[in-house]
Amino acid sequence: MKLYHVLGAKQYNRRTLEDVYETADRMEKVVKNGGSDIYSNKIMTTLFFEPSTRTRLSFESAISRLGGKVIGTENAGQFSSATKGETLEDTIRVVSEYCDVIVMRHTDIGAAERASAVASVPILNAGDGGGEHPTQALLDVYTIKKELGTLDNLHVVMVGDLKYGRTVHSLSYMLANYENVHITFTAPDNVQIPVYVKDYLNERGVSYSEEIDLRKAVRNADVVYQTRIQKERFASTADFEKANGKYIINDAILSNMKPNCIILHPLPRAGEIEHSVDSDPRAAYFRQAQNGLYIRMALLEKCFEPSKAMALPDPVNV
Amino acid sequence: MKLYHVLGAKQYNRRTLEDVYETADRMEKVVKNGGSDIYSNKIMTTLFFEPSTRTRLSFESAISRLGGKVIGTENAGQFSSATKGETLEDTIRVVSEYCDVIVMRHTDIGAAERASAVASVPILNAGDGGGEHPTQALLDVYTIKKELGTLDNLHVVMVGDLKYGRTVHSLSYMLANYENVHITFTAPDNVQIPVYVKDYLNERGVSYSEEIDLRKAVRNADVVYQTRIQKERFASTADFEKANGKYIINDAILSNMKPNCIILHPLPRAGEIEHSVDSDPRAAYFRQAQNGLYIRMALLEKCFEPSKAMALPDPVNV
Amino acid sequence: MKLYHVLGAKQYNRRTLEDVYETADRMEKVVKNGGSDIYSNKIMTTLFFEPSTRTRLSFESAISRLGGKVIGTENAGQFSSATKGETLEDTIRVVSEYCDVIVMRHTDIGAAERASAVASVPILNAGDGGGEHPTQALLDVYTIKKELGTLDNLHVVMVGDLKYGRTVHSLSYMLANYENVHITFTAPDNVQIPVYVKDYLNERGVSYSEEIDLRKAVRNADVVYQTRIQKERFASTADFEKANGKYIINDAILSNMKPNCIILHPLPRAGEIEHSVDSDPRAAYFRQAQNGLYIRMALLEKCFEPSKAMALPDPVNV
Repeated sequence: MKLYHVLGAKQYNRRTLEDVYETADRMEKVVKNGGSDIYSNKIMTTLFFEPSTRTRLSFESAISRLGGKVIGTENAGQFSSATKGETLEDTIRVVSEYCDVIVMRHTDIGAAERASAVASVPILNAGDGGGEHPTQALLDVYTIKKELGTLDNLHVVMVGDLKYGRTVHSLSYMLANYENVHITFTAPDNVQIPVYVKDYLNERGVSYSEEIDLRKAVRNADVVYQTRIQKERFASTADFEKANGKYIINDAILSNMKPNCIILHPLPRAGEIEHSVDSDPRAAYFRQAQNGLYIRMALLEKCFEPSKAMALPDPVNV
Repeated sequence: MKLYHVLGAKQYNRRTLEDVYETADRMEKVVKNGGSDIYSNKIMTTLFFEPSTRTRLSFESAISRLGGKVIGTENAGQFSSATKGETLEDTIRVVSEYCDVIVMRHTDIGAAERASAVASVPILNAGDGGGEHPTQALLDVYTIKKELGTLDNLHVVMVGDLKYGRTVHSLSYMLANYENVHITFTAPDNVQIPVYVKDYLNERGVSYSEEIDLRKAVRNADVVYQTRIQKERFASTADFEKANGKYIINDAILSNMKPNCIILHPLPRAGEIEHSVDSDPRAAYFRQAQNGLYIRMALLEKCFEPSKAMALPDPVNV
Repeated sequence: MKLYHVLGAKQYNRRTLEDVYETADRMEKVVKNGGSDIYSNKIMTTLFFEPSTRTRLSFESAISRLGGKVIGTENAGQFSSATKGETLEDTIRVVSEYCDVIVMRHTDIGAAERASAVASVPILNAGDGGGEHPTQALLDVYTIKKELGTLDNLHVVMVGDLKYGRTVHSLSYMLANYENVHITFTAPDNVQIPVYVKDYLNERGVSYSEEIDLRKAVRNADVVYQTRIQKERFASTADFEKANGKYIINDAILSNMKPNCIILHPLPRAGEIEHSVDSDPRAAYFRQAQNGLYIRMALLEKCFEPSKAMALPDPVNV
């Protein structure tokens, strides 16, 4: 039986995405009913080489709500054998024997795929440097589906750090599975969406445009996906300052949005959505964070019972 | 149903304290009988922005002895989204969705109260900077009750860092609920008990005095509450040195105490109680640490089943 | 009932080792059958003052596979009360009350024995500075037994850092329990096997020799035990460089080994076994890591049910 690794967004198609949404819907009911102990004999390892709050904690909550157990490290870079020069492959080979699934975040693009090549258990990519963050993208598309009822015929505006923002890349790839999607990119000069993302959208026939005026961009949007300018990804503070603070969602921007538009953000935020926006019903980012729990529970079920899951194609250029 | 937040010592009155003691007594029996799995579907999050051993581990043990699960971080300041500029409020709002109770320690006074304003689950304050440490105070008063049979008509001597020592503040507030308590403060010049604590005692009609001679102070004491001079709270090493090493409990001091006096210490200690004292039956600090487990199990039950708990009044000036 | 502390390799004799192997065999079946919940009411504390991946995670996996729970810290040196000047003894005395067994790794030789003197629960030594690492030695001898069917009449070659390599010391002590064992030590000049290890082997009548040519050393070996030159144990980089890179197991060395020889390594490795060797059936180090899980489950059972375990003699010169 093939392992259900989640390495990159391109693995998914319309049908396998639908499979995940349905499982997530079911998982929400499990949580509302007080959890389950169906996977009480399962162990999930968290290997985090970069800081995380919500991704790690939501995965730990997900396995706990299903009765399972967690082992792991919250700072593998500093406290584990990586400090002694061990390769990622050796770490994964050994840790595979201690658990039933590995959730990993790493500093290097492609790290999760390298891990999957040697692992004897499923690998869930919780972020690989500037690469991808597919479980975030899954909860993003799931939230759009839940909030708006469909993923077809949507105008999605992506704002902020579109260069280093791995969630934006993964989300773009997933949206390519839907009909008549238009994406608008609104980014500071030095953090524009990469050419390879545009190439993929071209290949898949997805319409997109760029717009530097946020007020104009949001006017016809169904979804505004705001992101943080990630200081830790810039070479210098000067470069960071050039990108930071350009696009802020506040009451003025809100007044330009359609009444049924939703605002998403992968969080954490650092000022790019003002707190006054939180109470607007269009502010969907906290509901989005909550959906992360159901999506991650769904992925764990697929890892533990691959026979019930719709098989994923092999990842291509993850 | 109102959430059972534990934010500060002033929330408690004589009756709600008694309610906690009774539950703690029951929890001791649960532990002695090998634990319970009554809360196997509950998840506790630990969010610690400052180091901790006994508080965090005793909370983790408490939820485990009741069958529940733990998610969290042992160094939120370094490894979580706080490093990316996220506000405490955003963190709490998201983490609330992943668990059933949050235990937090933070560097800022009032952090737990801020958290409780946005949380959808109960907040247990495990220390907020130089502010309060109410779960420690609860185990302190519980230990006095268990050791001496009453909290009325007692002479309590508090020794050491009475300025930054948040456990001393919380304990003073709680003692104000009992009859005919007298508190003696014995502290180095630069770490005297704050005026706002004295103001509260005056307001509540609690008798207190100050005594710089430890030998005299302990002579009629029923409880000697020793504390560590906390190097990490001082602006300079020189200031620390002025306060450190002044008041040490050793065999000579012990010989001045009544035979039924008890010595408490929130621990960790760093020399202010000599090891020779440990074997004296009056040395109650390790029994006190053990009581921390039962108190924290009791608080978790109240968080999970607020209908069974005696409702707490709103915190005032926590 | 005496506590089942595991402090050093010298505690074990042939019969008590056999007792551990048999339990480990049984534990492998438990894992293959999907785990057990027999110890669902047990709590294991991990206190790690030094980095660890496989030791800590395999212990956490071990207790999880038996249904139990984990509390602890992955960096006790930085985040716990040790930073506030607390003695190890005080920490252990308190933590003992919160759990059923403590697994600890410390920077100081003898730390585990000091802990056992004050603990009210069993202590499992997961490494004490340059001292010992007995649970690693147990999985090492267990792996030899499983791979070769016996521990008598073997020629064991130990390679690399034999001075600071605590696993080598512990393994040497354990091998002394078997008949007609010969050990060859192959080490760079500045990290030779310590005199006190040789003294012990002399005392126990174990034959050994030294050989600086690795190709010659491995020729008649039944077991080649390779180790990492541990940069973190050297006073200077120059000293480290003198020892590093001298002895590497590669295809050329492999071609000098007997067909039924096995290669072990406590892992992590940092270049001293080339990756091309991994696919050779004699490369047993990943199977060895897996055995660590079964051994640690076995030790936990002995801690929780000492009446079923063969009593260990008191540790001597641990």
